[in-house]
Amino acid sequence: MSSYVKNLVKQARWASYKLADLSAQEKDAALKNMARAILKNKRFILSENAKDLVKANKKGLKKSFIERLALNDERLKEMSLSLKEIASLKHPLGQEISKTSRPNGIQLSKVRVPIGVVLIIYEARPNVTSDCTGLLFKTSNVGILRGGADAEHTNKAIAKALRQGLLKSKIDFPAFFIVEKPGHGIVDELLQQSEYIDLVIPRGGESLIRKVVETSNIPVIKHYKGVCHIFIDDSADIKKSLRICVNAKAQRPSVCNAVETILVHKKIAGKFLPLLKKEFDKAGVSMRLDKRALKILPGLKKAEKEDWSTEYLDLIVSVKIVEGLEEAIEHINTYGSHHTESILTKNQANARRFTKGVDSACCFVNMSTRFSDGFQFGLGAEIGISTDKLHARGPMGLEELTTYKWIGRGSGQIRI
Amino acid sequence: MSSYVKNLVKQARWASYKLADLSAQEKDAALKNMARAILKNKRFILSENAKDLVKANKKGLKKSFIERLALNDERLKEMSLSLKEIASLKHPLGQEISKTSRPNGIQLSKVRVPIGVVLIIYEARPNVTSDCTGLLFKTSNVGILRGGADAEHTNKAIAKALRQGLLKSKIDFPAFFIVEKPGHGIVDELLQQSEYIDLVIPRGGESLIRKVVETSNIPVIKHYKGVCHIFIDDSADIKKSLRICVNAKAQRPSVCNAVETILVHKKIAGKFLPLLKKEFDKAGVSMRLDKRALKILPGLKKAEKEDWSTEYLDLIVSVKIVEGLEEAIEHINTYGSHHTESILTKNQANARRFTKGVDSACCFVNMSTRFSDGFQFGLGAEIGISTDKLHARGPMGLEELTTYKWIGRGSGQIRI
Repeated sequence: MSSYVKNLVKQARWASYKLADLSAQEKDAALKNMARAILKNKRFILSENAKDLVKANKKGLKKSFIERLALNDERLKEMSLSLKEIASLKHPLGQEISKTSRPNGIQLSKVRVPIGVVLIIYEARPNVTSDCTGLLFKTSNVGILRGGADAEHTNKAIAKALRQGLLKSKIDFPAFFIVEKPGHGIVDELLQQSEYIDLVIPRGGESLIRKVVETSNIPVIKHYKGVCHIFIDDSADIKKSLRICVNAKAQRPSVCNAVETILVHKKIAGKFLPLLKKEFDKAGVSMRLDKRALKILPGLKKAEKEDWSTEYLDLIVSVKIVEGLEEAIEHINTYGSHHTESILTKNQANARRFTKGVDSACCFVNMSTRFSDGFQFGLGAEIGISTDKLHARGPMGLEELTTYKWIGRGSGQIRI
Repeated sequence: MSSYVKNLVKQARWASYKLADLSAQEKDAALKNMARAILKNKRFILSENAKDLVKANKKGLKKSFIERLALNDERLKEMSLSLKEIASLKHPLGQEISKTSRPNGIQLSKVRVPIGVVLIIYEARPNVTSDCTGLLFKTSNVGILRGGADAEHTNKAIAKALRQGLLKSKIDFPAFFIVEKPGHGIVDELLQQSEYIDLVIPRGGESLIRKVVETSNIPVIKHYKGVCHIFIDDSADIKKSLRICVNAKAQRPSVCNAVETILVHKKIAGKFLPLLKKEFDKAGVSMRLDKRALKILPGLKKAEKEDWSTEYLDLIVSVKIVEGLEEAIEHINTYGSHHTESILTKNQANARRFTKGVDSACCFVNMSTRFSDGFQFGLGAEIGISTDKLHARGPMGLEELTTYKWIGRGSGQIRI
């Protein structure tokens, strides 16, 4: 282990114990100071961001990439506001999850505590630096943040501002860390520090996440991709279904909770598919159809086997006609990514069967898949979305950044 | 991937969906039939066990190992009883963990569901085969069980009996699997099946568990070892403290919740340590002391640096004098295994500081560390103890074998 990584993780563990001692009030005041410091350092952050943008343009990086990297007054305001909002959220720490009294007189309680040290690996999205720092700080977790190399100057500048805010609150120990040393080797080393790092959350493309899972001996919470489905049952309300399908696909096609495959009950397909095509044409969405759907809408592109497990992140959707509910569930469990699926139906029993049978983090009835989101769920924040089954599933807010400990209070009991 | 493993994990995933459809009543009835089948097949199981015992004796395996492998009428009765008890426990599945109504009319609930497919890797302890099968079945998880090669015949025989019990309940699909093919290669392959296996629980020695963590790309829940501490504060009740120390060390020294290190406040050490030595002498416990303690009890064995992180699993204990509470907490967080620690004190503020500052799954006040146990906690069962921080911490019962999904019910809502 390099001395850089060794010092970093040891300091982070030590800081996690210090951070756990801060009161809720102290942390909220510091978050507000961090929010102010972002605005106060606006000029400095924008000039550092300009350096990254010059480099990115020279490298010829994609327009969409540069668009995400670029900061402006508006975006800095949003980052600041987001920190203020985190300050206003309810604190999950210290909450008693359960409490029992044992026959031998021992009082036992399960209490929410911080996870400890959390490594966040992300691409060149500067707002992640301040958002994650805020969420982790609120829950007394020490963040080790590793952002994309292309946002190097921007991230350092944001971190500097955030530290200024902390100092204003007299928090003079390092409550979060930015990994400033370049190179993949550092990340690989960090991913081996299970003694000092409790959790890794990778945010980014599927290949980045797979690399992290393969390398890490620390628990990872993640989603590789969102291959979300809508199943149109034979009793679905046609008008509502059309609205939901267009919303789920076209409102923001580049995100993980957009729909990728629409499954249509054979009994309703003849009526529904031509109407759907009309709406999708208007929205600029192109359809890829299975054999049976092609008979109803001839001349369109055929869906290949890979289509059923593809996250298009684009105005493309695959469509398949199914025999009924059970085939829809089986298709989703076979080809899906266990993220978010929705059934559109008037049949209550079918809705129950769907939400039970589908093995996904979010199972919806008569609503758009786009609601799979921490803010829409009322969590007040979102650190990520998990398609894992352990610890946290679906949108993750503050509570999902906590664990628990058992506290037992006795009066001298021994085991007999 | 070998076709053996491929078939196994695909079948297991399929079975997990079948198992999720069984009702609580059906499962409890089947568990009772499994309990009966163990007794009914007593002769067969014992004769198969005899084959393993002959082999083990020939191989010259340790006495304690053979003792754990050997079955008899009494042990089979216990295994059967344990399955009956599992049948009588409350079902955690379907429980609504939380429920909210969003401003847009969406009804959102978080509901407990099975994890799915769980791989258990364990050594030659035949009761683990039936206990784990019972716990996993109750929570609608499909177990893939890989027991030690030295219990091969015994495990097959137990599995055969359990399957008979299931058939009696007309459950004719494979609700659990025993990995019958020998060799480490099979385990290594299984540990790569993150698409089909949701969780691995290794039970056994530290080296087995480390191997699993290094190999697996599936989430693992585990504890490597239990280096548990007792801190005797200066206000501790001497008589109770002596009783607790002896109980925590000597009542069953071979288990993970036995105490390994006793930390003594310097103000009470002069009085306490000679009394402790007297009690430990009676109980056959030998002490390893730090420099300061050696001055009070000269001539005893000195504790080396390794002692502070050693799980003796034996009638040996290390003892250290500390300046006070903060040094005790720091020692525990540095050398401990995040398992179970207890403070003995009359000072409420110190008790609170200890339970907050100690970064362990179980933080106790005035009670023996030996209470860190699923049955003692009233969980009714125990699938293992976790020193991890994610998903489950400390003793794990039925609830810890579940995850949740989000169910959203709308009336046509789209995201705007």
